[in-house]
Amino acid sequence: MRMVDVIQKKKRGEPLSENEINSIVQGYVNEEIPDYQMSAFLMAVYFKGMNKKEIADLTLAFVNSGDRNDLSAIEGIKVDKHSSGGVGDKLSLVIIPLVASVGIPVAKMSGRGLGHTGGTIDKLESIEGFKTVLDRETFINNVNTYKMAIVGQSANLTPADKKIYALRDVTATVDSIPLIASSIMSKKIASGADCIVLDVKVGSGAFMKTVDEAIELAKTMVEIGKSLNRKTIAVVTDMSQPLGHEVGNANEVMEAIEILKGNGAEDETTIALTLASYMTVIGGAFADFDTAYRELDQIIKSGKAVEKFKELVQIQGGNPEVVDNPNMLPHSKYHIEITASESGYVSAINAEKIGITAMLLGAGRKKKEDTIDFSAGVTMVKKVGDIVKVGDVLCILHTNIEDQQEANKISKEAYSFSNTKPKLSEYIYEIIQ
Amino acid sequence: MRMVDVIQKKKRGEPLSENEINSIVQGYVNEEIPDYQMSAFLMAVYFKGMNKKEIADLTLAFVNSGDRNDLSAIEGIKVDKHSSGGVGDKLSLVIIPLVASVGIPVAKMSGRGLGHTGGTIDKLESIEGFKTVLDRETFINNVNTYKMAIVGQSANLTPADKKIYALRDVTATVDSIPLIASSIMSKKIASGADCIVLDVKVGSGAFMKTVDEAIELAKTMVEIGKSLNRKTIAVVTDMSQPLGHEVGNANEVMEAIEILKGNGAEDETTIALTLASYMTVIGGAFADFDTAYRELDQIIKSGKAVEKFKELVQIQGGNPEVVDNPNMLPHSKYHIEITASESGYVSAINAEKIGITAMLLGAGRKKKEDTIDFSAGVTMVKKVGDIVKVGDVLCILHTNIEDQQEANKISKEAYSFSNTKPKLSEYIYEIIQ
Repeated sequence: MRMVDVIQKKKRGEPLSENEINSIVQGYVNEEIPDYQMSAFLMAVYFKGMNKKEIADLTLAFVNSGDRNDLSAIEGIKVDKHSSGGVGDKLSLVIIPLVASVGIPVAKMSGRGLGHTGGTIDKLESIEGFKTVLDRETFINNVNTYKMAIVGQSANLTPADKKIYALRDVTATVDSIPLIASSIMSKKIASGADCIVLDVKVGSGAFMKTVDEAIELAKTMVEIGKSLNRKTIAVVTDMSQPLGHEVGNANEVMEAIEILKGNGAEDETTIALTLASYMTVIGGAFADFDTAYRELDQIIKSGKAVEKFKELVQIQGGNPEVVDNPNMLPHSKYHIEITASESGYVSAINAEKIGITAMLLGAGRKKKEDTIDFSAGVTMVKKVGDIVKVGDVLCILHTNIEDQQEANKISKEAYSFSNTKPKLSEYIYEIIQ
Repeated sequence: MRMVDVIQKKKRGEPLSENEINSIVQGYVNEEIPDYQMSAFLMAVYFKGMNKKEIADLTLAFVNSGDRNDLSAIEGIKVDKHSSGGVGDKLSLVIIPLVASVGIPVAKMSGRGLGHTGGTIDKLESIEGFKTVLDRETFINNVNTYKMAIVGQSANLTPADKKIYALRDVTATVDSIPLIASSIMSKKIASGADCIVLDVKVGSGAFMKTVDEAIELAKTMVEIGKSLNRKTIAVVTDMSQPLGHEVGNANEVMEAIEILKGNGAEDETTIALTLASYMTVIGGAFADFDTAYRELDQIIKSGKAVEKFKELVQIQGGNPEVVDNPNMLPHSKYHIEITASESGYVSAINAEKIGITAMLLGAGRKKKEDTIDFSAGVTMVKKVGDIVKVGDVLCILHTNIEDQQEANKISKEAYSFSNTKPKLSEYIYEIIQ
């Protein structure tokens, strides 16, 4: 097999064999295939796509390029959840204790934030003492005993995908659905999940900008799951504005605690309950979605959900008092109010701009190596549909950095206004299973 | 300007500015832009194409990346001829003396053969003593005195195109009309031509396999000529079978001499006269094509054309006696007759396979570094439309290599047969000017 012939084949739109896909993935990792051939191939994939079989083969080739987490010592069906990334997305903090509270094991491996999107691991580390590195035995024991544990990704999972992703990033080949879908699904499968619930976000703060694209990505991932015998459900959810009212780390933990107490904003509460419901159904705790949703809602209202989160903090070395007294979380020095220069309805909030604002305030990373300030972030005082007068506070920037001209400007630009009441987006566009 | 943004722009099908095109060509030559970005860009160009302005800008960027031949010391309009490459294409050997014989200066820079196609420089070197390296002064003087000179390309012409071509070759991005057209035209323009006549070949032995593709390439190159003020005419000619009866080096010289004496095969005589006619019209020697064709035909018949070739051999250091006594050209040791295993009409001859046969016999190069055997080649005894019986000789392989199993096999495979007389291809499909 010559790589140039495989590129030619894909260029003509012909499907590649499993053997061809394995050879190019392995060849690239082994540095037998140079970057310049792989990038030409990726561009051909962008234009010509891949069929279901090819995408499943590619996913498996990524999985086989590295380690696999062995979760066989955990009893029960291991259900994983993945979000395609958004702004103010603290849902994992809510979903882990909620799903664990009905006995479904959640063995979560999670990532850190980059660019305008945050990461669950960063958020949890804003709790004093919370350890996101656990030895394998503790991790397994915690899941078996408490039905939950969360750690940062440490094993050498899907190195082929990592190497190819880095190349896609500099060759304008990121936005290819077969490549995005195989990248996400390979990580989930290598992580050891039996079943997967995907939160595919769509809108200004998400990778997918249109509902059609998001549905296509969701369908492609569900198909991969089917091909590789991992029951997969995808929920396409709104990210046209930041989720809830808090964007950052410590402030998102604070808001997650409120959701778990039953005081969360409607958008994030609905989406969290929906995702958790599918996870518990897929994991066998409930017979159907409606029952699951009702029961989980009841668990929140009863106070059991927030107690389970307190348990999570405690077993991972954090100070559980933080749950009853969120003021113990880090606070920043400056709180800048961004006010409206015009009056009317808030017609849109560009979520990516709010994400970038949070990053500039210290809450996120421009580059992987950057450190983050847990206390930094944005509080969204006004959201889409709210009425504002000139001078009203739109949002509050929390930071320890004195000069925040750029963040002020970008956060203000994120808001658009109209004279008529805007149509509100749905929270959930589509369920694909 | 970030290269990733330019790739993205082309991927979306948006035209690039002159500045963007110059930056990526210069950046690539200076190694500021890595191969992997250039190859992704080239694949995007393959899928999204380029408009006339972009193609002209790219051509000029290639020209500006290296030296330009200064032909200003040559009197008259310098007309260059280019063939897109074929099998048995000895037309330059005929055209140079023919055009020079009516006073139009031909300052030819020519290439060597690679793969299944031959090169004019190699063919001429099969004449004992023929020098294809001349110092600049001799080259200019010869053109001014005798109206003709031919040398191998030695200057650093269009290095950007060379570097990009090498990358295209290994990334399946060769077959893009904007890239082919700009590559060819940039070399011609850097060579110093005022006017250009292009022989765009189409068929089994050519790069372009269909007449439509060949016409598109021809139109694109004529447009580049217009944009860059070089009067250009393209002639789309048949390469569905090898041209004439000889494929190789010494044997092609022998056949070229026969054409110049008026004894050439009809296909190559017609195409040579057509190309030469356009060159002499464009160069101002004749008012119109029909007059030019008639006069040049007369020059062949009068014996003046072959005398002019004898002069070319002499002034470049070769032994002119070869023209009267072609037996002085190198001869090979083995002559293998390939015979028909079936009877009927020859319905097709795959020209690429005959080209590969000649290469395997020693007449061509697999790699640039290979040396060639001037005496090796193929004589096409039967051509398309001929009737054959079992055992008739189809072609004769000339070689000094003893074991020629593969060449035997491939040359035999090149022939197809039918029971009914096949429709013969036209020699010339289209003139674009």
